[in-house]
Amino acid sequence: MYDCIIIGKGPAGISCAIYLKRFNKSVLVIGKDFGSLEKATVINNYYGFKEISGIDLAKKGVEQALNLGIEVITDEVLEIDGLTVKTKTNEYSAKTIFLATGKTNKANIKGINDVLVSYCATCDGFFFRKKRIALIGYGSFMEHELEVLRNFSSDITVFSNSITNDENVIDGVVELLNVDGKKIIKVNDKSYEFDGIFVAVNNDSLAISKHLGIITDNNNKIEVKNYETNIKGIFAGGDAIAGLDQVSTAVADGANAAVVINKYLKEE
Amino acid sequence: MYDCIIIGKGPAGISCAIYLKRFNKSVLVIGKDFGSLEKATVINNYYGFKEISGIDLAKKGVEQALNLGIEVITDEVLEIDGLTVKTKTNEYSAKTIFLATGKTNKANIKGINDVLVSYCATCDGFFFRKKRIALIGYGSFMEHELEVLRNFSSDITVFSNSITNDENVIDGVVELLNVDGKKIIKVNDKSYEFDGIFVAVNNDSLAISKHLGIITDNNNKIEVKNYETNIKGIFAGGDAIAGLDQVSTAVADGANAAVVINKYLKEE
Repeated sequence: MYDCIIIGKGPAGISCAIYLKRFNKSVLVIGKDFGSLEKATVINNYYGFKEISGIDLAKKGVEQALNLGIEVITDEVLEIDGLTVKTKTNEYSAKTIFLATGKTNKANIKGINDVLVSYCATCDGFFFRKKRIALIGYGSFMEHELEVLRNFSSDITVFSNSITNDENVIDGVVELLNVDGKKIIKVNDKSYEFDGIFVAVNNDSLAISKHLGIITDNNNKIEVKNYETNIKGIFAGGDAIAGLDQVSTAVADGANAAVVINKYLKEE
Repeated sequence: MYDCIIIGKGPAGISCAIYLKRFNKSVLVIGKDFGSLEKATVINNYYGFKEISGIDLAKKGVEQALNLGIEVITDEVLEIDGLTVKTKTNEYSAKTIFLATGKTNKANIKGINDVLVSYCATCDGFFFRKKRIALIGYGSFMEHELEVLRNFSSDITVFSNSITNDENVIDGVVELLNVDGKKIIKVNDKSYEFDGIFVAVNNDSLAISKHLGIITDNNNKIEVKNYETNIKGIFAGGDAIAGLDQVSTAVADGANAAVVINKYLKEE
């Protein structure tokens, strides 16, 4: 049982871990990659670095945390259940969780705004019991969602390029269509109708938040009040919440959130 | 005429300059030293640096700013009059000012809390016209305050170790006493009574703020609302305002304040 599990090993996550460690709290940082920071080839507006690539900065951050005795593991979070974090390989519990999951990469699917889709099998699978379900996605998170959906229906079609040994998998560029309220997926010049369409392209902040029942705003940012989400014990910061989406501000979010979390731990 | 003059070349000041420069604004950074950062021998909680001294980090910050074409000068601000900044050597005007003046080092004078003292000759000198005035301090700022006080009274005693060619200067460890409402300065076993006592140990955020009529809180922090002070066109961030007093948060203050200042410049 950790005092805090931090999801995300970017600037907000690592900065929060550093401060919590200083407050003598037990911390576990879990991250699968460096998100949008990996795409930044040159950063020259983060104080102290004349010029550094996002990936180099991210690596320095992890090294710094390890050097301070902080546990940082590379793993993918598939689900958070209460205050238990389920990853691809393990399960961890904590008194608090800090979501530093970064920006939401909205699924780049044509027509995604025209059709009502779901981003959380656990939340919405029930509404499509014994109905025709489509699941669009890839990777471990998609497989996790598929497992969940199988509890509700056996009529599931997967649109993916990552599962090949299954006859119900269609590989191709999908397009979503809303035809008189009917949910249509068009791929390889064929059209399929479904009752429910689930998207699981990446288990980013949006997916994790939806699973937890966390309130997000119109930009898919987690709504917080002084870093506290609407779910008790769960906090968020960095690009996952509204702000400048900068390393500078993510680092401060981490530090400030650590103070809030430390106070919460004392009071509970 | 600059878009913004930034007072302070520490993390908040430099970070703000970097972001304003990115917004294509003309910026001048003026700083006399690195304040409390100079005293930090080891910093290991600022994201990206496993271990660095405060002075090394501060120097990296200035180098970074210079590298981005930002004007950074080492000079001491003696007074801000409206939106004109008067330093020891020059005078500069701007549309906005960002105070990144760091922590206030409260004068380490015995009894300072027992006696009502003033930190601003321009503000309070008038109340002691032709009265007995004491001025405790050193350096350029003290000399500046002395010049101002001479407009109001010729009966001025300076307690300092930095002016030696003046017979009205007393050198020694001063103690303030409140004896039945009388303002007494005790030094070298002698006691002196004054009508007004001025303190000018350092022209830090507190002194500058008092001069400007900026509202500060009980901890001598500048009160801001989204980085705006109560004086139009003047903003503040970093250790000069309430917060964690950390590099992490100062850097974010700089970035966030730059956004606010940029918006202000657009609207004016």
